[in-house]
Amino acid sequence: MKPLGRVVFIGAGPGAADLITVRGARRLAQAEVVLFDALTDPALRELAPQATWIDVGKRGFCDSTGQATIDAMLVHWAQRVQHVVRLKGGDPSVFGRLEEELQALAAAGVACEVVPGVTAAIAAAADTQRPLTRRGSGRSVSLSTAMTRSGSLHANPQASRRADTEVFYMAGRQLAALGRSLQAAGWPPDTAVCVVSRAGWPDRLSSDHPLAELGGAALLHAGRPAVVTVGAGAHAVARVAPPTSPAQAPLSPCGERALSAS
Amino acid sequence: MKPLGRVVFIGAGPGAADLITVRGARRLAQAEVVLFDALTDPALRELAPQATWIDVGKRGFCDSTGQATIDAMLVHWAQRVQHVVRLKGGDPSVFGRLEEELQALAAAGVACEVVPGVTAAIAAAADTQRPLTRRGSGRSVSLSTAMTRSGSLHANPQASRRADTEVFYMAGRQLAALGRSLQAAGWPPDTAVCVVSRAGWPDRLSSDHPLAELGGAALLHAGRPAVVTVGAGAHAVARVAPPTSPAQAPLSPCGERALSAS
Repeated sequence: MKPLGRVVFIGAGPGAADLITVRGARRLAQAEVVLFDALTDPALRELAPQATWIDVGKRGFCDSTGQATIDAMLVHWAQRVQHVVRLKGGDPSVFGRLEEELQALAAAGVACEVVPGVTAAIAAAADTQRPLTRRGSGRSVSLSTAMTRSGSLHANPQASRRADTEVFYMAGRQLAALGRSLQAAGWPPDTAVCVVSRAGWPDRLSSDHPLAELGGAALLHAGRPAVVTVGAGAHAVARVAPPTSPAQAPLSPCGERALSAS
Repeated sequence: MKPLGRVVFIGAGPGAADLITVRGARRLAQAEVVLFDALTDPALRELAPQATWIDVGKRGFCDSTGQATIDAMLVHWAQRVQHVVRLKGGDPSVFGRLEEELQALAAAGVACEVVPGVTAAIAAAADTQRPLTRRGSGRSVSLSTAMTRSGSLHANPQASRRADTEVFYMAGRQLAALGRSLQAAGWPPDTAVCVVSRAGWPDRLSSDHPLAELGGAALLHAGRPAVVTVGAGAHAVARVAPPTSPAQAPLSPCGERALSAS
């Protein structure tokens, strides 16, 4: 069957509807059909009230049957309407399983566009005002998943530190094991770790832990999508003395509000 | 001097004005003063015509004098108006020198907010339709800079591969040296490398190179901000056979348009 339309993949950002890009919002406004993930903000529907919205999301990992069904649905709709949107939480290119869906559409001759989005690691850094890169100490960042599809921790045969700042997605269910694994990889037990759940949302929550006590974060963030930032980028920005007139410029909490739950 | 206002750091995204987030656009619309970098799209000014726009950007790295001046200007304006915006290319938390500016504002008692943006690595992946993570082969991504502040290549004493996909920012002037450094770190000479300059802009340009020939990209992307993607995420998405009825669903180029210069 010849395709009628094309598919636009849009990164919705980490959650709250206003973290989508302007380009993403404009493409949504043209959509006839939107296939969306469970974690995207329902308020995004207001950007495309004319469209048919189809929930294809699962929390955590899709199993392969689910993914094949999504692939088939994308092709199905691209053969029937002109403007199909595939709305994904975060950014489609980072742990978004974009590869599989692009392959299925290529095989069916469907043209695609990808509109990038704000990925969770970056949203967590913004919420907590903790830059992922730092002068001198933080010149590299790694993004990885802590878990396999079956929900167990990835074995890391190299067991090495990957970067000055490491961010783990989908780590919520394995925090204690992740902490042990990172220590085995050479991170000291007192390494700073910052856990942020529901980054980008009004009810986001962040907490600080030394690596050896990371398991203690599990209860606080239970059932909430979380990212775990380890190393240079996990530290609160150091207070420095004001450049002029300390009496008139007291040390004051730039960002303190964002560091606690809001 | 007591602060009157607050500073909102906004990630403008990689370039084109419509890759800013909706939240970022709304904050800009409230700005009285905007301090912006050279690489941001002039069209963003239309989002804040009421504001005074001050160019504080330099291409590549600021020297320390420049950074201290920016810090002082942020404090100066926060003491005089209510809504100050610091607009940065890409995302403020990733190679955005956010740490220094947050420190200066904290020292002066100025409240801050950080609105995340689309970072260049992700924009390049969207443009080329090459996901940074891949099923099986690409489960980690690293972001780093290829160059020191003085413009020479970072020495990497560990010389190890950091992740399945490695993305380098600000590598345009040192492509041949970066290629040699990555081979010394263990990447095979035929590793896939994708170079994208002006990601997110209409005149973006991408090119493919085996790692051993990365130096050949220098002329093509000369003078244009570029990101270099190495490894799993640098490959074009593999064509697969269509799931049903090959005669009716010929192998067709999903994304081919974006893979060449547009």
